[in-house]
This record gives sequence, structure tokens and C-alpha cells, in this order.
Amino acid sequence: MDKSVLNALAAVRESSPAVHCITNSVAQNFTANVLLALGANPSMTHDADEVGEFVASADALLVNLGTLDPARRRSIDLAITSAENVGIPWVLDPVMIERSHRRAESAAQYLLRKPTVLRANGRETALMAGGSDMDALRRFAKEAGTVLAVTGPVDHVVSATQFADCSLGTPLMHQVTGFGCALSAVIAAFLAAEGDPEAATLAALHCVGEAGERASVSAAGPASFAISFIDELSRLGEETNV
Amino acid sequence: MDKSVLNALAAVRESSPAVHCITNSVAQNFTANVLLALGANPSMTHDADEVGEFVASADALLVNLGTLDPARRRSIDLAITSAENVGIPWVLDPVMIERSHRRAESAAQYLLRKPTVLRANGRETALMAGGSDMDALRRFAKEAGTVLAVTGPVDHVVSATQFADCSLGTPLMHQVTGFGCALSAVIAAFLAAEGDPEAATLAALHCVGEAGERASVSAAGPASFAISFIDELSRLGEETNV
Amino acid sequence: MDKSVLNALAAVRESSPAVHCITNSVAQNFTANVLLALGANPSMTHDADEVGEFVASADALLVNLGTLDPARRRSIDLAITSAENVGIPWVLDPVMIERSHRRAESAAQYLLRKPTVLRANGRETALMAGGSDMDALRRFAKEAGTVLAVTGPVDHVVSATQFADCSLGTPLMHQVTGFGCALSAVIAAFLAAEGDPEAATLAALHCVGEAGERASVSAAGPASFAISFIDELSRLGEETNV
Repeated sequence: MDKSVLNALAAVRESSPAVHCITNSVAQNFTANVLLALGANPSMTHDADEVGEFVASADALLVNLGTLDPARRRSIDLAITSAENVGIPWVLDPVMIERSHRRAESAAQYLLRKPTVLRANGRETALMAGGSDMDALRRFAKEAGTVLAVTGPVDHVVSATQFADCSLGTPLMHQVTGFGCALSAVIAAFLAAEGDPEAATLAALHCVGEAGERASVSAAGPASFAISFIDELSRLGEETNV
Repeated sequence: MDKSVLNALAAVRESSPAVHCITNSVAQNFTANVLLALGANPSMTHDADEVGEFVASADALLVNLGTLDPARRRSIDLAITSAENVGIPWVLDPVMIERSHRRAESAAQYLLRKPTVLRANGRETALMAGGSDMDALRRFAKEAGTVLAVTGPVDHVVSATQFADCSLGTPLMHQVTGFGCALSAVIAAFLAAEGDPEAATLAALHCVGEAGERASVSAAGPASFAISFIDELSRLGEETNV
Repeated sequence: MDKSVLNALAAVRESSPAVHCITNSVAQNFTANVLLALGANPSMTHDADEVGEFVASADALLVNLGTLDPARRRSIDLAITSAENVGIPWVLDPVMIERSHRRAESAAQYLLRKPTVLRANGRETALMAGGSDMDALRRFAKEAGTVLAVTGPVDHVVSATQFADCSLGTPLMHQVTGFGCALSAVIAAFLAAEGDPEAATLAALHCVGEAGERASVSAAGPASFAISFIDELSRLGEETNV
């Protein structure tokens, strides 16, 4: 990993950012453990009476649309408003919007509130951007005023002015439920510690990809991979020579 | 494992069925990871605004009664209706009905909607069937118009006309929370890929039992067993000679 | 581990207490697996229609304030009333009350219902007790009529009349989400099996600390530690010489 990635990782570990996650019930546990392994400090409530105060004392916010329900809908609005008020970055992760018109509409609506980063897979991004070629993505990022992190075999970070790739990773990532959801939370943690959104997003992708590659070496399958991934993430950056 | 089980497993892997799960919050993560290891495609929302559309684009449905609440009750009715409309199989898993009269009544009511398979342990089945001997089970299966999968040290598959056993497995399965819940989801995946409900159920039990036995060999306890089980399930059927 | 701890552990394993947990959605799965490894029998619903009956047939209750929401608030009141009616012990775990005034008020209110044990970290305890020195803690325990379990690098068990320490453990425990939440559930299980609250709490801390230390030996990071911890807990007390 190059110096800028290691510096961003060191900044995360030193600042131990509080990352508030409104995320789906399937991914909550894995996401929290990934954030802890990274050195961040997760919180997860989506109760309307509490979420504003939690976000106000956080350093970044994740809005993940999995298992969306009335309580999550209400708290997402409150959480984004609270994030705007205190000026912290936030990540939008539109999960499985191809399976629900209502959820796709919600994703479009939350996008109008200008997330710092939109993290999605290729299918979800194409649905939101109305296309998947580079021109469509760049135009979409510009119009939305967001940085796109389009993940897949190769990850793309696309903004109005910049473009970068990350080809680290392993197919095992797609066999672990909530892996992409946890990645979005990691991006939020990096946004809290590193001011430049494109650089923060790219550093997050590199760290997750690198930990994933290391974990895949000894993994006997997707479950031992997920365990090893968290272990590797907790050690990442400790090496003297990388 | 015999040829018919391997064929059913191959059919699951090839078709990658979308299995929608309304299941308890304790078992969601493990269930999703088990389905992914099997090659299936899990989804988990139980929001009334989304569940009908999710089920309409799924290949099978799981209705698990753990952590039942008003949102799950409402979405279960909508999900079963959606499953009937698109003609996909569904599995009913009545969890801990001996601890709640209200939940036992719900289980009885959902049974009237004729699940393709009812998966339960011996205690739960006896409560619903009014007895646990083979005559009682066969009569109950016939009246309910469902296939029973009664799991325990030996699993029984009972329908109006057929009966079969599966004695694969390990006591470690009972020390992992949500193991039975995940098994019910696996049955749903097999029902999507293999038309005959008795054969699909038996194949699911054999695959889970076989992966469980393999995982138990090197397990140091219930948690390493659960990890190894998912790893083994992901590799099951890859052998040239089984 | 000394004889009294081993006896309390043996009592848990022999009686297999049913522990009903109203706990946060992040910690549910890990908590259930920890209780199963201990030999206890977990249940987790927080639905108002069911919780009273579940608690009435349980041997102990855990009230954890993580991801508190209207459904949990309502069921906590019903659950405590049910626990009082059947005379079973209960544990209060006030999670992250420093992040939410509303939650801190709820914790203070639930404390008035006299939990058998209040389990919290040093920060949470100081907030509730209005101080963290031994005099403040003892006065607080006396006024509240509860046993305090203040966990950290060294755990303290404090009541109106007694004081004890437990220095077993490993920093890895703080890198696993829900570890403290699961510990509170373990205390509830010990309270069900061992009549003396101070002794039960201390035995629970020793067992969790001992399993944690054993697990840390071979752990490659926080995720493999969590797996190994559950495995070690399931074997604890089996040794002939300890």
C-alpha cells in the first residue's frame, strides 16, 4: 500500500472516529466489528428520539438502505439533518434498490441531500445514474455533487473532476453478507479522518481490498475468510515494510 | 451423499435462487451467510411497503416466527399472498411456540395458508400436530397439506404419502443460535431448485447434515464449528468422489 | 479458578437457565451464542404481546439499553413487571448513555425498579453514580439497592456491604462488539443458578475473564478471538485440574 493510504489509515487509528451507522439488521454486527478492527468507534441506533443526538456527537454518518422500514426512514431524515448541522461527512449505500421501487425512490430522494460519497455496486449505480459508462458516471457524480464509489471486481472512484481505480480484493467478499455494507462504513470512517473525499474513499477501498487479499490466502471458505478479514484489518499498517 | 442429493445441490448452485427470508433478528446474519455459502441469494426485509415486491421477484420464501412483532406479522401476510400470486414455494418455521400462546396461535393460522414445508423440532411439531408418533404426524401432514421436516438427532420428512429419515448431523448444531432457522432457509432454497417437495427437503437435510459432520471433525467448540460449517457447505459437492 | 466459581459454573450448566434478553440488535447473535456455550437457554423477543409470557417462563432477565426504541421501551416495562411477579433476578445494562440524554433518563428510571445487578463500564457507572471513587460507588449501590458490576481493565463488584475485584481479561474484549452486552447476559445466567448476587456476579466475571484469557493466547485478532472465546467458554470447567 502506498504512503498516502498508510497515512490515511494512521489518521483513522489515531483519531478513532465515532461513526454512526443507520444500517440494515443483517449487517449491523459485522459492520460494528469491522469498524472496531479499524480503530473506529461504531454506534447503531435508528430511534427518532436518539439518532439526532448520536449523530451530533459522531464524526461521520452511514446511511444504508437495507431492511428499510418506517423507523429507519424517519431516523435517516433526522440523521442527515443532524450531520448537516454539525458539518460531518456521510455515505449513502443504496442496497438492493433493483428489488423495490419504493426503495429506489428513497435512494433518489436521499441523493438530493448530497451525500459526501455514494457507495454502490455496478447494478445499483447504473440504476441511479441511468448508465454505467464512464461519461454517465462522471455526469451523474457532477450533477449529484457526490463522489461515487462503484465496487465490483475492480472498484472505481468517480467524481466531477477525478477518476481512480482499485483492483485489490477477492471473490470471497461477495460470499459474505454485508461485506459491501461494512465497506461503506469504512469509507465513512476514512472521511472523518482524511479531509479529501476522493483520497479518503480510495484509501478505504485499498485497505479493505488489501486486508481481503491477505485474508483470502489462508481462508477455507467464506466464513473463515470473514473472520480472517477482520483480524487482518486490525493489523493493517503495523508492518514496517509494506 | 447419493446422486439425487448431489443433483439437487447442483441445481441450487446453478440456479442461484433468490430466497426471501422473514426471520428473527438473532438469526438473520447467520441465515444470510448460510444461503450465500450454498450459492443462493438472500434478502431479508420485513417492511410492509417492500416485502410484496421482494417476494414477487424471489424464487422461494421463508417465514420464521422468531422475534415476531407487529411489523413481521403484517409482512408475513403480505409475503404469503405474494408467494401465492407468483406461485413460489414457502417454508414455515414456528420458533419457540411453547413459550407464547399468541405465537402458537399465529403458527396455527399461518399453517392454514398451506406452507410447502413446515420445519420444526420435535417439541414444536408435537404441539402443532397434537402428538409425536408417526400416525399423528402423517395425519397432521395430510390434513395440513404440507410436508413436515421434524428435526432432531434423527430428522424425519413426513408427508401424506411418504416418509424418510436423515440421521446425519452433530450435537454441536444445537449450540449454535439460529442453526435450525438457517436450515429452514436452506430447505426453501432447495424447494426453488427441485420441484418435488419431499425430495428437496430431504436433500437439504442431507447437505446440512453432511456439512455439519465434516465441520465437527476439526471444531474446537460451537463457534469454530459454525464457521467451519459455512466453509464446508460452500465446498459441498465439489468432490469428484463422494 | 477457585472452587466457588467452578461450583457456580457447574450450577449453570446443570440447571440450563432460560435467560430472556431484551438487548440491542447488534449484540443479539453474539449474546445468544455466548449463552448457549455457557449451557444456558436464550430467548430474545421484545414484542409487547409476547414478552411478559416469555419472561414468566424464564429464570433470569437481561435489560440492555442499546438500540433502544419504542418497542423495546414498552417491552422493558412489561418484562420487569413480569420478572417481579415471578420473582426472578434481572440485570440492567445501560449502553452508551453518555451519547443520549433520553437514554440516560431511561437508565435512571429503570434503576428505580431495582435491578439485581447493574453492569456497566466505568464511564457509564460514573454518569449514573455521580462519581467513580469507591465511596461514591458504594453509596450509589446502597441507595439503588443493587449490586454494581463495573467492568474495565479491572472489574469491580460493589454492593452496600461487599467489594471484590476481578483482574482477568484481555484488551481484545474491547474490540468485539457486544462483548460487554454478552457479559451482562452471562451475569443473568449465573444469578439464576447461584442465589447470592455478589457471588454470582463475581463468578460470571471470572468465567468470562478466564475464557477470554485462554482465547487470547492463540487469537490472530479480534474476530478469531471472539470465536475462540465462545469455544473456550463452552469447555470451561471440564478440566480435572484447574
